[in-house]
Amino acid sequence: MKESVVGIDIGGTFTKFGVIDRIGNVLVEGSVATDQTDDINVYLSGLSDAINKTLAGLGESVSIMGIGIGAPNGNYKSGSIEFAPNLRWAHGKVVRLVDLLQKHFKMPIAVTNDANAAAIGEMIYGGAKGMKDFILITLGTGLGSGLVVNGELVYGNDGFAGEIGHVRVKDNGRLCGCGRRGCLEAYASAPGIKRTVFELLADYNGNSELSKYSFDELTSEMIYQAATRGDKIALEAFQITGDLLGIKLADAVAHTSPEKIFLFGGLAKSGDYILKPTRESFERNLLKIYQGKIPIELSSLAEGNVAILGASALIWQELNKS
Amino acid sequence: MKESVVGIDIGGTFTKFGVIDRIGNVLVEGSVATDQTDDINVYLSGLSDAINKTLAGLGESVSIMGIGIGAPNGNYKSGSIEFAPNLRWAHGKVVRLVDLLQKHFKMPIAVTNDANAAAIGEMIYGGAKGMKDFILITLGTGLGSGLVVNGELVYGNDGFAGEIGHVRVKDNGRLCGCGRRGCLEAYASAPGIKRTVFELLADYNGNSELSKYSFDELTSEMIYQAATRGDKIALEAFQITGDLLGIKLADAVAHTSPEKIFLFGGLAKSGDYILKPTRESFERNLLKIYQGKIPIELSSLAEGNVAILGASALIWQELNKS
Repeated sequence: MKESVVGIDIGGTFTKFGVIDRIGNVLVEGSVATDQTDDINVYLSGLSDAINKTLAGLGESVSIMGIGIGAPNGNYKSGSIEFAPNLRWAHGKVVRLVDLLQKHFKMPIAVTNDANAAAIGEMIYGGAKGMKDFILITLGTGLGSGLVVNGELVYGNDGFAGEIGHVRVKDNGRLCGCGRRGCLEAYASAPGIKRTVFELLADYNGNSELSKYSFDELTSEMIYQAATRGDKIALEAFQITGDLLGIKLADAVAHTSPEKIFLFGGLAKSGDYILKPTRESFERNLLKIYQGKIPIELSSLAEGNVAILGASALIWQELNKS
Repeated sequence: MKESVVGIDIGGTFTKFGVIDRIGNVLVEGSVATDQTDDINVYLSGLSDAINKTLAGLGESVSIMGIGIGAPNGNYKSGSIEFAPNLRWAHGKVVRLVDLLQKHFKMPIAVTNDANAAAIGEMIYGGAKGMKDFILITLGTGLGSGLVVNGELVYGNDGFAGEIGHVRVKDNGRLCGCGRRGCLEAYASAPGIKRTVFELLADYNGNSELSKYSFDELTSEMIYQAATRGDKIALEAFQITGDLLGIKLADAVAHTSPEKIFLFGGLAKSGDYILKPTRESFERNLLKIYQGKIPIELSSLAEGNVAILGASALIWQELNKS
């Protein structure tokens, strides 16, 4: 009988899950809608049914040892999802996800946020295998971060460690989704680089292929495509984004001194367009004792099912502890 | 026979040492000069002789289990002191302290920097007893930091973690001792607040009891004394220092989410003059999920022999591991 776990990735629209063995093979996948109800119990019943049906299809050959969940604002220490603006049934409240799901599955269950799940995934299946100290940054709708120190994910006292998206990179800077101004996430993320493009268009008064898009239309993917065609505003937007990201990654190093930093998520797919200015600014801003020692690389995990892989890695790690 | 360790605190001028038991009693103390030679071997011979004489005085009643050392730029992972500008025999080079001292003492020996030693001291003997996640900041000649995560000191991949003094608090700010501009240490430290006073004197053109001191004469203690007498420039200097420190402590929380932050060292002795503006700025700059949760307090360790206590705690921790 093959020992496996269920990895669940809760997104605002869809919840994906997969059955994953110890070496990271995804045996089977499935998904349900996340946004069809305000009632967490209705949502979890539907999810549990879907998982059970999928497991039934696998027959007796697979033994499920536990469930790992990656979710926005997922808190490992409390087992809850707390005030997640993009989840209908967790908007403005605390949902005790682990307790509630345990009514459906009598096995070890753990939850953490998306960036932490990705960091654990990188550590168990990806480029951070065997590393004791590293940082993973997700550059997507927001900027998430997972810090690993002494071989363990940093959850902090309250389970909310690793919010590097909300360090201040500009005094009186842009308004951030968190309500404060100047957070790194307001610059180094998919919406962040879009805002930078709009600032540059305003400043230069046009002359870019990006000038034909509305704020609602423009995506970081379009900015990347424009950059590949040499569009100056797109290129400068990447430069500015990398500059600011590099400064704060240098600051992060002064906290935990990692062996490597991994970039992951939508904006990281821009490859060298984001990597090059980030690395240059990073090296320029590092304290001398760290210079030339700490590579910044793209995550080695495939984008597709990394979230469920990461979530599965969370529960494998948990099972290995006991 | 009482099990004890030797704690050594290497400063630029003096090296203090003490014999310390498991519960932090200092059984006996001694000291030698640090700055009488450029030759590390000459220095260590003198130090070893002094320690041996002191131990001889204790007779058979005490058994020495190991030696812990706190030193500027002490690196736990390499056992070295690396490029310490204030140590004559380690200026501009790497000194393999642990290896060299082991020629004199055949027992476990460990070194770390002053701030890390203080953090371990706080954890074992002070206000952080039982805490798994906290940060200790030393506000002295520089700004040092010791981070504890999951009950362990964060050394990082290269042993150089915890350099929060060198995060950037101002773009194109003051020149820091590290050669870069705008580091927190150039503002929030004993020399930092002095520089702020000089900036304020220049800006306001006098009218403060501090206007009678030269740059060489002025100390943070004098600024504190002036503040207690209501001197406006002294008070504003504390306000500015606390403002900047609070911003970066809020950023530090976004990395490791500690249970508490401890302030220690010369400038921390100013008590509420530094604590109040720091706490206010800290709360104002914290991400909402952290607000109101994380106290900033003065270290509970007595200033006098905390450094040798911290150094002894380092080696106790080491001995407890094995």
